[in-house]
Amino acid sequence: MDDAPRRPGPVSRVRALRYGADGGPPVEHEEQLATEEPLEIRIGDSRRAVTMRTPGADFELAAGWLLAEGVISGPDDLVAVRYCTDVVLEADERFNVVTVDLAKGAAFTGPPPRSFVVSSACGVCGRETLDDLRERGYRPAVPGPPMDPAVLAGLPDRLREHQAVFTRTGGLHAAGLVDLSEGPPGAVLVVREDVGRHNAVDKVIGWALLGRRGSLAGTALVVSGRASFELCQKAVAAGIPALVSVSAPSSMAVSVARSFGLTLAAFAREGRVTVYSGEERLAAR
Amino acid sequence: MDDAPRRPGPVSRVRALRYGADGGPPVEHEEQLATEEPLEIRIGDSRRAVTMRTPGADFELAAGWLLAEGVISGPDDLVAVRYCTDVVLEADERFNVVTVDLAKGAAFTGPPPRSFVVSSACGVCGRETLDDLRERGYRPAVPGPPMDPAVLAGLPDRLREHQAVFTRTGGLHAAGLVDLSEGPPGAVLVVREDVGRHNAVDKVIGWALLGRRGSLAGTALVVSGRASFELCQKAVAAGIPALVSVSAPSSMAVSVARSFGLTLAAFAREGRVTVYSGEERLAAR
Repeated sequence: MDDAPRRPGPVSRVRALRYGADGGPPVEHEEQLATEEPLEIRIGDSRRAVTMRTPGADFELAAGWLLAEGVISGPDDLVAVRYCTDVVLEADERFNVVTVDLAKGAAFTGPPPRSFVVSSACGVCGRETLDDLRERGYRPAVPGPPMDPAVLAGLPDRLREHQAVFTRTGGLHAAGLVDLSEGPPGAVLVVREDVGRHNAVDKVIGWALLGRRGSLAGTALVVSGRASFELCQKAVAAGIPALVSVSAPSSMAVSVARSFGLTLAAFAREGRVTVYSGEERLAAR
Repeated sequence: MDDAPRRPGPVSRVRALRYGADGGPPVEHEEQLATEEPLEIRIGDSRRAVTMRTPGADFELAAGWLLAEGVISGPDDLVAVRYCTDVVLEADERFNVVTVDLAKGAAFTGPPPRSFVVSSACGVCGRETLDDLRERGYRPAVPGPPMDPAVLAGLPDRLREHQAVFTRTGGLHAAGLVDLSEGPPGAVLVVREDVGRHNAVDKVIGWALLGRRGSLAGTALVVSGRASFELCQKAVAAGIPALVSVSAPSSMAVSVARSFGLTLAAFAREGRVTVYSGEERLAAR
């Protein structure tokens, strides 16, 4: 038996429900998702960055980031690059912190990032990231209306009809809010486009906020690309019960959705959709 | 005549060279690109975030971001959301800063971001972002070898052959480094995959750094998605003379590439490629 901590791999397996275009009952299937886990980059004893990344080549990631940030100018500025060596750490913590020791003369002058609360140990991992969200006041998603899988599967097509700038440039992400509570299901309330996925989602949520729409419990958020940790986090923060994406979710998107009761539906295209979380909102078929 | 400052729009026009699959000379064409410009979010007098975004719905972006960050919980926490009112500002500065006044009780406690140097006036714009890079020590791209447009056009296909995890999950971005200086042109040196585009590029650059490969003057960076400001910045920082992307570049990607002499080639597919900058490295045809 090998008792050494095992590194998280680039692929995670989760069970999900595949709804076909034939209107039949869903089929449970084991899906392979890209792993998304936090990586903390330390210089000496000091946390300098936390990025959500796919495990693997972590030393390269830290070194490349330091070069791009202008902290180092070549390999001679690096004395050591290593994983955290606290023996009490579990595997998913041990391999999510990279510590860099700089040569004399190289220095990082910026303040540490505010994005994550620093935990007591040297570790950071997906579980702690979820705890951090709870401590920051994120609450479970609202109940939300019953949702028809066929309607969810068709939402990206509705989004595309409103992507004016994408049609001209091919260079934008889109996010939209649709109404699932009254009237024809899936009516588009607003669509926003941006070079940044997170910006497009912020604009949609800000539209509802500035328009004083009140509760978003009857809506779903639709995004043109993939579903990440960050997008699920924003949906939960805004009190939206469902996130629907055209492409694949990450492992951490599924973790956030399951922890906060968000309905996460992905690969929504051609009448099909795969549901990773919150299937209790879906109408039986 | 309307003398009021004009807001930057969501679409920018630039001239570029389109190389066809027929091997003939390039055709100059006016391309429409998604605009990418910095937006500074201020709370009162204090800069709290800078994000690269597409202009439009900026108040919504600021409000949505504050909600997702947990700073506000509803519209009543916002007293005012406005553009900067310094009369000396030019249009591209005036509309790139949003100031939010919070109601009593709402407060933002984190430190300001370190990503951009704070400029003297209340403005931030693309020109200043480029000046900021120069001040941080970014130097013009190295000369680099002559490049065959047909080779550049084929690089994304070579990248895909190495995208092991994407094939299984559909959920990853890829970045690769190819050799254009010796041997068969376009030989793949390294490919890295990640849920984050910037992470994949950092891993590739870190691979070269930790492997002590020395100058990257004979290489090109290939990315699976779009070409943004940030990816061009990383290529320049690493001394790579060319960036090739499968999909569209943003306006700010073109600005960085032209300012630092980076060859920027996009829409590389099916033998065709469009070149936005640094065409002097391309072999005549």
